[in-house]
Amino acid sequence: MTTRREHDLLGDKDVPADAYWGVHTARARENFPITGTPIAAYPHLVEALAAVKEAAARANAELGLLEPRIADAITAACREIRAGALHGEFVVDVIQGGAGTSTNMNANEVIANRALELLGHAKGDYRVVHPNEHVNLGQSTNDAYPTAVNVATILAVRELSDAMTVLEKAFAAKAVEFHDVLKMGRTQLQDAVPMTLGQEFGTYAVMLGEDRQRLNEAVALLHEINLGATAIGTGLNAAPGYAEAACRHLREITGLPLQTAADLVEATQDCGAFVHLSGVLKRIAVKLSKSCNDLRLLSSGPRAGLNEINLPPVQAGSSIMPGKINPVVPEVVNQVAFEVIGNDVTITMAAEAGQLQLNAFEPIILHSLSESITHLGAACRTLATKCVEGITANVGVLRAYVENSIGLVTALNPAIGYTAATEIAKEALETGRGVAELVVEKGLLPAEELAKLLRPETLARVN
Amino acid sequence: MTTRREHDLLGDKDVPADAYWGVHTARARENFPITGTPIAAYPHLVEALAAVKEAAARANAELGLLEPRIADAITAACREIRAGALHGEFVVDVIQGGAGTSTNMNANEVIANRALELLGHAKGDYRVVHPNEHVNLGQSTNDAYPTAVNVATILAVRELSDAMTVLEKAFAAKAVEFHDVLKMGRTQLQDAVPMTLGQEFGTYAVMLGEDRQRLNEAVALLHEINLGATAIGTGLNAAPGYAEAACRHLREITGLPLQTAADLVEATQDCGAFVHLSGVLKRIAVKLSKSCNDLRLLSSGPRAGLNEINLPPVQAGSSIMPGKINPVVPEVVNQVAFEVIGNDVTITMAAEAGQLQLNAFEPIILHSLSESITHLGAACRTLATKCVEGITANVGVLRAYVENSIGLVTALNPAIGYTAATEIAKEALETGRGVAELVVEKGLLPAEELAKLLRPETLARVN
Amino acid sequence: MTTRREHDLLGDKDVPADAYWGVHTARARENFPITGTPIAAYPHLVEALAAVKEAAARANAELGLLEPRIADAITAACREIRAGALHGEFVVDVIQGGAGTSTNMNANEVIANRALELLGHAKGDYRVVHPNEHVNLGQSTNDAYPTAVNVATILAVRELSDAMTVLEKAFAAKAVEFHDVLKMGRTQLQDAVPMTLGQEFGTYAVMLGEDRQRLNEAVALLHEINLGATAIGTGLNAAPGYAEAACRHLREITGLPLQTAADLVEATQDCGAFVHLSGVLKRIAVKLSKSCNDLRLLSSGPRAGLNEINLPPVQAGSSIMPGKINPVVPEVVNQVAFEVIGNDVTITMAAEAGQLQLNAFEPIILHSLSESITHLGAACRTLATKCVEGITANVGVLRAYVENSIGLVTALNPAIGYTAATEIAKEALETGRGVAELVVEKGLLPAEELAKLLRPETLARVN
Amino acid sequence: MTTRREHDLLGDKDVPADAYWGVHTARARENFPITGTPIAAYPHLVEALAAVKEAAARANAELGLLEPRIADAITAACREIRAGALHGEFVVDVIQGGAGTSTNMNANEVIANRALELLGHAKGDYRVVHPNEHVNLGQSTNDAYPTAVNVATILAVRELSDAMTVLEKAFAAKAVEFHDVLKMGRTQLQDAVPMTLGQEFGTYAVMLGEDRQRLNEAVALLHEINLGATAIGTGLNAAPGYAEAACRHLREITGLPLQTAADLVEATQDCGAFVHLSGVLKRIAVKLSKSCNDLRLLSSGPRAGLNEINLPPVQAGSSIMPGKINPVVPEVVNQVAFEVIGNDVTITMAAEAGQLQLNAFEPIILHSLSESITHLGAACRTLATKCVEGITANVGVLRAYVENSIGLVTALNPAIGYTAATEIAKEALETGRGVAELVVEKGLLPAEELAKLLRPETLARVN
Repeated sequence: MTTRREHDLLGDKDVPADAYWGVHTARARENFPITGTPIAAYPHLVEALAAVKEAAARANAELGLLEPRIADAITAACREIRAGALHGEFVVDVIQGGAGTSTNMNANEVIANRALELLGHAKGDYRVVHPNEHVNLGQSTNDAYPTAVNVATILAVRELSDAMTVLEKAFAAKAVEFHDVLKMGRTQLQDAVPMTLGQEFGTYAVMLGEDRQRLNEAVALLHEINLGATAIGTGLNAAPGYAEAACRHLREITGLPLQTAADLVEATQDCGAFVHLSGVLKRIAVKLSKSCNDLRLLSSGPRAGLNEINLPPVQAGSSIMPGKINPVVPEVVNQVAFEVIGNDVTITMAAEAGQLQLNAFEPIILHSLSESITHLGAACRTLATKCVEGITANVGVLRAYVENSIGLVTALNPAIGYTAATEIAKEALETGRGVAELVVEKGLLPAEELAKLLRPETLARVN
Repeated sequence: MTTRREHDLLGDKDVPADAYWGVHTARARENFPITGTPIAAYPHLVEALAAVKEAAARANAELGLLEPRIADAITAACREIRAGALHGEFVVDVIQGGAGTSTNMNANEVIANRALELLGHAKGDYRVVHPNEHVNLGQSTNDAYPTAVNVATILAVRELSDAMTVLEKAFAAKAVEFHDVLKMGRTQLQDAVPMTLGQEFGTYAVMLGEDRQRLNEAVALLHEINLGATAIGTGLNAAPGYAEAACRHLREITGLPLQTAADLVEATQDCGAFVHLSGVLKRIAVKLSKSCNDLRLLSSGPRAGLNEINLPPVQAGSSIMPGKINPVVPEVVNQVAFEVIGNDVTITMAAEAGQLQLNAFEPIILHSLSESITHLGAACRTLATKCVEGITANVGVLRAYVENSIGLVTALNPAIGYTAATEIAKEALETGRGVAELVVEKGLLPAEELAKLLRPETLARVN
Repeated sequence: MTTRREHDLLGDKDVPADAYWGVHTARARENFPITGTPIAAYPHLVEALAAVKEAAARANAELGLLEPRIADAITAACREIRAGALHGEFVVDVIQGGAGTSTNMNANEVIANRALELLGHAKGDYRVVHPNEHVNLGQSTNDAYPTAVNVATILAVRELSDAMTVLEKAFAAKAVEFHDVLKMGRTQLQDAVPMTLGQEFGTYAVMLGEDRQRLNEAVALLHEINLGATAIGTGLNAAPGYAEAACRHLREITGLPLQTAADLVEATQDCGAFVHLSGVLKRIAVKLSKSCNDLRLLSSGPRAGLNEINLPPVQAGSSIMPGKINPVVPEVVNQVAFEVIGNDVTITMAAEAGQLQLNAFEPIILHSLSESITHLGAACRTLATKCVEGITANVGVLRAYVENSIGLVTALNPAIGYTAATEIAKEALETGRGVAELVVEKGLLPAEELAKLLRPETLARVN
Repeated sequence: MTTRREHDLLGDKDVPADAYWGVHTARARENFPITGTPIAAYPHLVEALAAVKEAAARANAELGLLEPRIADAITAACREIRAGALHGEFVVDVIQGGAGTSTNMNANEVIANRALELLGHAKGDYRVVHPNEHVNLGQSTNDAYPTAVNVATILAVRELSDAMTVLEKAFAAKAVEFHDVLKMGRTQLQDAVPMTLGQEFGTYAVMLGEDRQRLNEAVALLHEINLGATAIGTGLNAAPGYAEAACRHLREITGLPLQTAADLVEATQDCGAFVHLSGVLKRIAVKLSKSCNDLRLLSSGPRAGLNEINLPPVQAGSSIMPGKINPVVPEVVNQVAFEVIGNDVTITMAAEAGQLQLNAFEPIILHSLSESITHLGAACRTLATKCVEGITANVGVLRAYVENSIGLVTALNPAIGYTAATEIAKEALETGRGVAELVVEKGLLPAEELAKLLRPETLARVN
């Protein structure tokens, strides 16, 4: 392997001649051999880093701090990266120490070397374009990195929000389809009172809609950035007007309504918005998992279960029991939910461990958030397309449960009183007989009035 | 002990003659011998239950479903309870099965028996006022209980919000007091660049302000109630107009802008708002814990620590080391934070475990939320009054750190370039000499320009 | 209120004249107004503190460091406390800062004052018996408190272990009772292959037995104590021979096979054994919760659920649905499990937050552990006596599921091959017909051979 | 792409002609597009699956159920996989529904097709070697998969255990190196009493040793396997003697002392051993994180921190502050610890969610466990080689803290009494003067006796 020699605070080090990354990245790769997964695994982050670096270059050029020629080369390199190029050069491990310094320096080095190339210079010729003195000009890891993380997260959440909409629509369509399908409602897994299957599926759609609203509120908090804060929020070494200009350019580049935080010292150390977002992701996971638990329960059987609905078969269910079809799609969603809930604890601990002017543990926060967002999005889409859209109802089974149910007695409560109703329920249970016939037999209600009371449409109060 | 005999679905059972609670409560006490703590431990819940029962009675009377005489007696009993009476009669265990049925029935029984007394009847004479047929009329545990939980939680959160304001003000006052106190900022526990102690304390105030805003947004979600949903949200057995009337009365009684949920089936099974609120409480805990970690770190010493600030001594610190004063107040706040974070996991699991039309595990959600809210409030007030308000700064120590720091070199970065700055830092580290003198000695900057660059006011960019 | 004046490092302070606690406790009560629950809520801890103080006094007397008269008075006071006296004097809050100093000092003060009384002196006359110089002699909070926490935890775990045995036996008895009851086994909530209800209940007993073994292994780690370590494990101020003597006396007093840790510096800061124990409690909680989920599922219905077993009714299930009986006992156990799992996170965070030579957060570890252990024990006993012992089987329902099941086809897999079996299953599903008749009809197996293959006893392989 | 057509329960499906996996895997890839990471990411699992399949084939051949020719081909294919071949063919997603069915079928298909090749047949010619009827013979996913997971986990834990040993030795070496270096011990971040830096580093070694012992105990539980249980533990379709033979062959193949579980029904549904192992991994994470917190604290500075030790510089610390070196290696270890703690919650939830005869969520348990084990191992090795081994002590700084400390007063406690000691401490604090000189000045002790008491060797009780 041909190499070029680079130099930093710790001395000389050879890097592969064709690598766009340099000495800092080289050391970081050796220092963090944890997961084997490079930060290239977060394309949104790579793009966001490029957007931040471009915004900084443009702001610095505008303020006369960076030669136009250099600024243009940096800008061009950043645009290539945002267009998808050079992602493979983002090689530091996703779990890394140093508060994101290695990620920031990986970006600085790749952009500097690509800018050098564009200017006709050799890689590593940092006198012309220097990773720190030019690409990172006016920045610190402590403002550039969190800003990029915010932008990346906003982009990722948009995709999750879209996936949730797909799932919400799938549930809502089923709510319409099952509008007239009567069924027994259950509380505490015991027969309760009648409802419709449409109402049941409608709740899943409503839940998702509410969750999506919470998600959008949470991600709104991330539009506040600390670019211009430099090391600890005092803006040391950033030129007057730089923060405002960099934010303006970043708004333009990303199309996002970003704003500079009012208190940069606070913004630089605070991970509250990430904890908040993770809390909302956890909320989504909880509701999704609950919905999938319900789908698995309602489709249990076929002969020794509730057997109320059928999930579309997507693969043979067993390596040994022929004909068995399992609810594999809800099951995978449950597992993603468990992962998201665990990630929330990781993020919580990482946020709590911040000290004084900085939280050094943002890389694991980014990592966990990124997995939660991406996996939840995949789970929502898969659940919609591989499961919910194909669900069918066993209408006859559902109706038989209602007609056979003790829970019907509740409907008679206002007409015959709690005490009498209790007695009827008891007798039905003991004898296995139906509630309706007992009520009539005992002369508690005339048959016609009973029939009126027991109309399913009345019972479920469907509009 | 004299007793009276009551009767329910399971048969006869004696209860103490003077107990306001009845047979259901008696069984529940035997069924849930878990913590020994009765629900009387949640005064807000007891009041909220009474408010809900009064609202229901008034709505039922208005709709002609309840004799005015009975409704008035129920109302009077509820008002007594809201005024603080009979709380000792709320005896079921805080951790209980049955989705809150026992809590709801405990309320129904106490109110029925107090109403009976007010009407001149003996306790237990349920033909006149029946816990189910009159006090619980038009309700189910599944709407009355969650509505009461929402109201109780809103009241509790108000107190927390007040306590947070007290703490926020205490930090803000210190930010003003320490406005001009220069100190070293630290990132990753390493010397970074200068700032002021006022900026440092200001961040704690800003964080709390933001958290309080999030808290208020989260609690706003709880103003949506499901009263009128009855068992599963279909409103079975609730009279037309009842939901609207009961909500209106509850608004009036509590003074809270409550609203009936648009989809009652969804609202009856959904614990999303609790998960969300708990997530925000966790966020508050994380930030409080981080702030207390900082306070403990900054006050470490007195001789072998940072020794930047002094926490007011509130008790002797050691049973063996005379003169030792420990940061006991921040420490107790840290522990409350750990409890809140654990409670969030409990609440998450309980919410995820909901099945079909109901979440049977709201009692533990209420319990954990209630502890988190109350303890956080106590922690904030204690931290403000027993610690933050009495903090003093060791101004000389703080300034010496700045003057002695390598971090000053960062300020010279723009003037002398990253590479030269790196060399200076290296030499200062190796020789133990000061940065400033080396810069002058090497002729990198004239002394006057250096002095200007190094003015602390410039460095910390304090307004 | 009459008072007496006491004095400490911070100055004078009045305490109630009849209080056995003194100035340190008085300050601690004001400093930690968090939960309102005093440490008297942990009787095992109060007894363990008295045992440690007695052991120290006897060791000090033996080494000639404490006058026999004083040692005897301290010993007598400690024995009264271990016999149940004066628990009401342990008044500091269960959540407290200071690494347990306030708890330790509360004990020192109560014991000193009771010893003074026994010697005919007035409370507060500390020249004769001093909380620090006599009762705490040779100790620090940092060894006395953790040692007491260990002893208290061992005692509490014994009760949990007993409660688990009660539940294990209840499940095992049902396993015997249901030995011959055939039923369908289910995987992923889908019909799988036949088994017996006895096998199903047997697994719950086996799980509990294994968990109990893990619990005993975990608690064995707590028998290693750090008494004699004093402040940080170097044993500063403890006399030669003191650690050995104090441990010997504590062994004698408690009857527990306690041992002094080999490395006292390590033992003084390490919370590993608590984290480990909490992990095992979480494991128990997970299994208990899973078992209760199963019980609730198997007893779902009665008409629109699995209806395989009946849980004994222990209270009316609904305030609105007459006749409804809910699985309230398993539900309360689920909630305890969620609490224990949340507590584990609290304990984990508290343990992780230890710094350098001490973990300052043992009070919340003790609190959370104590709740987990006590509540789990109550949950096990309640589940055994209020639920499992009274469970009955719906034998007919169970058998019908087997006879009606597609899962039977698996039994034919070896005889007719996976592909043919798959086809049969498919046809049974599509037509609603039975597997057996299809196999015979298609000539895949002669009827007699089929009957032999399908004998339930064969299927479930019950011994 | 050329394809071959395969067929299953759901109909025909084309797979790439050169793929060793078949129709089941093809469907699974489409059904679980969650993470993009294939199970090939767990080489130990792939090897363990091959070991299980070989053991089953050998057992089946021994029992006369499988033609020797087929068994030999399967065995040969498995050995190739165990030697590292064909791992790229294990393509289903690491997060998947179906309780591991897709992983098991992926293995069955790859092995069948490789065996076919070895026998001179075309891929997909399943009449000769069938994934289910031959490779999976006598097995179910529900026994083959958990058995493979156990074996894979045992192998992974061995590597973790080795990495912990490396770190333990690194700490132990430093304990020896720093044996005589006096320093101040700290409790609650306040100066406590003297100790040596050797004692401090010794605790980290001792902790790791204890944790490793716990880890080995936990992994011992995984040696109990359920091979032969088939679908639910009743062994349906497994030939008599099969379980015993398969376990014997697996023992031989892996060299591990595996044992068939006594109760296979219990073993098939129980995830207790995984929860237990994860609890121990969490314990390790807690202790590692605490140790890294300490390292970061002790190396804080260089001018405005404790500055007691120096971590070896491994990369430039800042993109903006020249000369700054950050504790990046401890920081990455902290983050791994937070991940492991979060994973424990994921595993806990997945284990709790098991229902009836099976836990469908083992894939996420495997995934989380695998990440925790691998990342912890990498963290330990990195911490040892990149950090601990290069740590140096600032001996002068450490000694100065001791000499300047108020904590020394504790050593005088026995000689001058608690009250006098308290006064000395107070005066030293107020005046900034040293403890020793005050003691002599006030005539509390003659200088020689004082000197004897204050000998560091005495104070730290180093052997």
